[in-house]
Amino acid sequence: MSPLTNLTATTSASPSALHDVAHHEQEAKDLTRILPASRKVYIEGSRPDILVPMREIALTETPTGLGGEYNPPIHVYDTSGAYTDPNIQIDLNQGLPNVREAWIEERNDTEILDQLSSEFGQARLRDIRTAEFRFKHISKPRRAKRGHNVTQMHYAKQGIITPEMEYIAIRESQRQLEGVDQRQHVGQNFGAHNLRHISPEFVRHEVAAGRAIIPANINHPEAEPMIIGRNFLVKINANIGNSALGSSIDEEVAKMTWATRWGADTIMDLSTGKNIHETREWIIRNSPVPIGTVPIYQALEKVDGVAENLTWEIFKDTLIEQAEQGVDYFTIHAGVLLRYVPMTANRLTGIVSRGGSIMAQWCLAHHQENFLYTHFDEICEIMKAYDVSFSLGDGLRPGCIQDANDEAQFSELRTLGELTHRAWQHDVQVMIEGPGHVPMHMIKENMDLQLEVCQEAPFYTLGPLTTDIAPGYDHITSAIGAAMIGWYGTAMLCYVTPKEHLGLPNKKDVKDGIITYKIAAHAADLAKGHPGAQVRDNALSKARFEFRWEDQFNLSLDPDTARSMHDETLPKEAHKSAHFCSMCGPKFCSMKISQNVREYAQNHQDENNSEQNTQEVEMGLAQMKSEFQKQGQKLYHTV
Amino acid sequence: MSPLTNLTATTSASPSALHDVAHHEQEAKDLTRILPASRKVYIEGSRPDILVPMREIALTETPTGLGGEYNPPIHVYDTSGAYTDPNIQIDLNQGLPNVREAWIEERNDTEILDQLSSEFGQARLRDIRTAEFRFKHISKPRRAKRGHNVTQMHYAKQGIITPEMEYIAIRESQRQLEGVDQRQHVGQNFGAHNLRHISPEFVRHEVAAGRAIIPANINHPEAEPMIIGRNFLVKINANIGNSALGSSIDEEVAKMTWATRWGADTIMDLSTGKNIHETREWIIRNSPVPIGTVPIYQALEKVDGVAENLTWEIFKDTLIEQAEQGVDYFTIHAGVLLRYVPMTANRLTGIVSRGGSIMAQWCLAHHQENFLYTHFDEICEIMKAYDVSFSLGDGLRPGCIQDANDEAQFSELRTLGELTHRAWQHDVQVMIEGPGHVPMHMIKENMDLQLEVCQEAPFYTLGPLTTDIAPGYDHITSAIGAAMIGWYGTAMLCYVTPKEHLGLPNKKDVKDGIITYKIAAHAADLAKGHPGAQVRDNALSKARFEFRWEDQFNLSLDPDTARSMHDETLPKEAHKSAHFCSMCGPKFCSMKISQNVREYAQNHQDENNSEQNTQEVEMGLAQMKSEFQKQGQKLYHTV
Repeated sequence: MSPLTNLTATTSASPSALHDVAHHEQEAKDLTRILPASRKVYIEGSRPDILVPMREIALTETPTGLGGEYNPPIHVYDTSGAYTDPNIQIDLNQGLPNVREAWIEERNDTEILDQLSSEFGQARLRDIRTAEFRFKHISKPRRAKRGHNVTQMHYAKQGIITPEMEYIAIRESQRQLEGVDQRQHVGQNFGAHNLRHISPEFVRHEVAAGRAIIPANINHPEAEPMIIGRNFLVKINANIGNSALGSSIDEEVAKMTWATRWGADTIMDLSTGKNIHETREWIIRNSPVPIGTVPIYQALEKVDGVAENLTWEIFKDTLIEQAEQGVDYFTIHAGVLLRYVPMTANRLTGIVSRGGSIMAQWCLAHHQENFLYTHFDEICEIMKAYDVSFSLGDGLRPGCIQDANDEAQFSELRTLGELTHRAWQHDVQVMIEGPGHVPMHMIKENMDLQLEVCQEAPFYTLGPLTTDIAPGYDHITSAIGAAMIGWYGTAMLCYVTPKEHLGLPNKKDVKDGIITYKIAAHAADLAKGHPGAQVRDNALSKARFEFRWEDQFNLSLDPDTARSMHDETLPKEAHKSAHFCSMCGPKFCSMKISQNVREYAQNHQDENNSEQNTQEVEMGLAQMKSEFQKQGQKLYHTV
Repeated sequence: MSPLTNLTATTSASPSALHDVAHHEQEAKDLTRILPASRKVYIEGSRPDILVPMREIALTETPTGLGGEYNPPIHVYDTSGAYTDPNIQIDLNQGLPNVREAWIEERNDTEILDQLSSEFGQARLRDIRTAEFRFKHISKPRRAKRGHNVTQMHYAKQGIITPEMEYIAIRESQRQLEGVDQRQHVGQNFGAHNLRHISPEFVRHEVAAGRAIIPANINHPEAEPMIIGRNFLVKINANIGNSALGSSIDEEVAKMTWATRWGADTIMDLSTGKNIHETREWIIRNSPVPIGTVPIYQALEKVDGVAENLTWEIFKDTLIEQAEQGVDYFTIHAGVLLRYVPMTANRLTGIVSRGGSIMAQWCLAHHQENFLYTHFDEICEIMKAYDVSFSLGDGLRPGCIQDANDEAQFSELRTLGELTHRAWQHDVQVMIEGPGHVPMHMIKENMDLQLEVCQEAPFYTLGPLTTDIAPGYDHITSAIGAAMIGWYGTAMLCYVTPKEHLGLPNKKDVKDGIITYKIAAHAADLAKGHPGAQVRDNALSKARFEFRWEDQFNLSLDPDTARSMHDETLPKEAHKSAHFCSMCGPKFCSMKISQNVREYAQNHQDENNSEQNTQEVEMGLAQMKSEFQKQGQKLYHTV
């Protein structure tokens, strides 16, 4: 079966029957088509089952008139997984191949359970109403053996370099750079350590220190290992998820595939609507990247949306349910303390985090401390049995410019610092969520305080949005803040789509959000001076200068859009290799003139140089002559 | 006649007959329709002919359940001119009403010439081939009387507050702020002086000091006065213009109207194709904002595209031709010196400025110094006879990340500083153009050097783009840099559209570029702490918090897009006033929960307060009692 057929078969097996087959076929093509001039290559590590994917972009030669040299291919980080490997048959019904199964197995510290540990999970598995759209090949769950801790941090602290760490080291730094223009500006990185070569040992060292996390639940062996930390490439997350108002399982799976295709490093499934459990299973089984969730959303569904009715027991069962499905990181709003809630009363927009407002409501209703805080050590016990990482939620983040950096926000951040320390005592991996809405000049204060109080645990921010006045364009208002905070040290940027504040993102919105955040993350890498970050910029700019239009398109973050925009003005194929660009037309082109200038200047400089050389030689000779004469024209002198 | 009819009549009179009438009618509606809930209001100055336009956005009341209070209208800066005033009949054939004619006339330092001074202008006026599409009501040109200098800087230095300056003072600061939430963060403005109240005298003072310019050619009395300087609101420019490859006069006029409708503060006409002279006349006569050009483009057309054939005489005639049409500022690449050209030879992308490469080519071909530099004083003489402002071009700006902040770029900038000083000796207004492509961490160096060597003359930058890898999204790669450099002190940001590097922008691209740059400029105003900048953010965020969807749309930079995105998810009218938002659905809404929390916290705080108060009172009483007893229970003590 071709991937296309499989994708088609799968989507028609899931509950939504809204699309006809033709539509599915197009969708399947969209999701698996390889980007132009690209092929997936794998770099092998120290053992044959460490195969690290990259996308290789082939370039054309420089035109003969401009030197005619060979331009080596450029390798770029590839998050798209097996979908873009023509040698792998995709069948969403079966899920992706297991990348990590053997590594987990050989560590011999986990066991396969006979059944799910979560009551809710068991109930859903038995429920005949969910059978129709349930993922067909649910594996039995894996859990740490009694007394074992299976987190990557635990291994790292013991000095063990896992295959995951080696995989990441290759993924982060080992590109083929021969013949490539590696010139780059010295960056400004505010104390980060952006090494030229990232070794497996460096990965281990950073994970052990808590400065980076590897979100890698043992029940998500399909995910390709990746790392989040400020000494590595800046990552981006894309949110998907259905709501009570719409969207089906196959739409969410398609969004996930679509998002990773364009560069999402992790996906958060924020579903709040129907069949959350089943939707998540489909997503995880088919996701090549780590999946994050906010378990309190599902817990709230279980108590019919009444926050006061939440209990630790319901929440705990939800954590285990999701951990055994393979969720890689949990957003936990354990820093929303009872005493911080009244600090938000005079805000312009109160509490805008959904998780934060749920917990605030619970705290106030019960006049008790947040149960996520009081049960934090028990949560850690669950996390370390599956290697789920914390994403400590910023439930009190500002929802508008006016509320930025206030007492409530920073009080919670300090508590997150305390919880980071507690999680680390359990060897549980932690990242910290950050705002939100912050004017540019107040962004750095967030980063500085986070680094200080959370001891360099990775920061993971939503934007921040730098103004409130552009609904419909909040991918842009926030990309400004995201690029800046990424430069200052944020390790992962949570994307914002154009629909933020307005509605549920569609496929176009998801792509717009992803590309915009790839820009922000890359701009941050450049500003930090992350080694090799500028290679793609240099290659693209050289292609631009040499009128290699196809190379320029193919090197861009979104080749399809670049090409189609160009074709709107100059649709003919011939124009793509023409020596003028679409802005200026054939007779008037600054690039062309500039090349003339270069040649001219080069000749002129040579002239200058040779003139100068002649002069220097003459002057030298004259000086020698004069000295020779001064010294009495003797060839030898006594010392 | 309705404006629509007039617009229709006009467009059909211009050369392009591509569109049918139905299309024109829709276009006319698009260009004149008033934004929702908005009306144009005028604030009268010290005399009845100083009428400063603003757009007033009416808001609804807070829902009864949330307090039911009145929300005063918000006034925003309005660049759209007469097109959005239903009381003014628009006829593109006649041009816009003259706002400044009387002010210019009453200064009694100008004269109306019998005929155009430029040979080229005269020839075009006589040419029967251009008659068909020539603007029908070309006025006779105005020029300074012999021995007079008619620049706003000249008046300012003499202590004269012109009506233009008063108009600007009102436009920049006098909004109705009664009842409006004026809370705002203290900004960080790097030495700018963002005053709370902008007086006419302050405007004069800044213009006299050269820290701000008022681009206001005496032959463009249709333009509504505006100011460019870092102590005022950050402005944006939109580029339009045809090329040899396409676009007609009516398309360019429509683009100009469209761009000012969405917020362009100035327009640059960068036409390089056919009928440049006639296109410019149509644009200027119908533009409510200052128009800038790059005269060397047209001069090059006159020598058939051969840069070496350019002469000072041809260029001079072009300056006069354009000055008498009413161009408000000229980009002049006088800083591209012969000795700087070889500095670009080892660049990755050489010289990418069109004007820069033309002048470099000329310098090298003749082995002579740039004639714009050698004739600079003569250029100043022309500028001051019409009050055309300099936009000193950065012909050696970097065209890629690798070339940022290099010797060529900064050498030119220092020469622009020298030329600023020379222009000021003539009382000619100056702003300085800046890059280009610069990684984030190297942006501030540009601003700091510019402030230093150009003595705070306004900086006017293109972006800068913060990465090269996203053709198709360069409005975003550059908005990041633009917001930052605006914060650091840039006075005007030249927009970049998604088509940058790829093709000619269409209407959608122009709008995308404008809105993106309005975001960047506004984010900069917020970060600088410009007084009143946060009013609109606060109003919009309050509307969002109170589920006043219509107000949220209407306060946004692009109400149409915000509304249509919302309607994709929740199309029913009823939903726009529903107390939940489209992300979460009716049962699960953080805003709703947050409001509950606020009420709860409020009650709780009152309890706390009253408890605390009671305790305090009791403690106070107890203390008093104890002291009273200690002191022997006497009511009066001797001193």
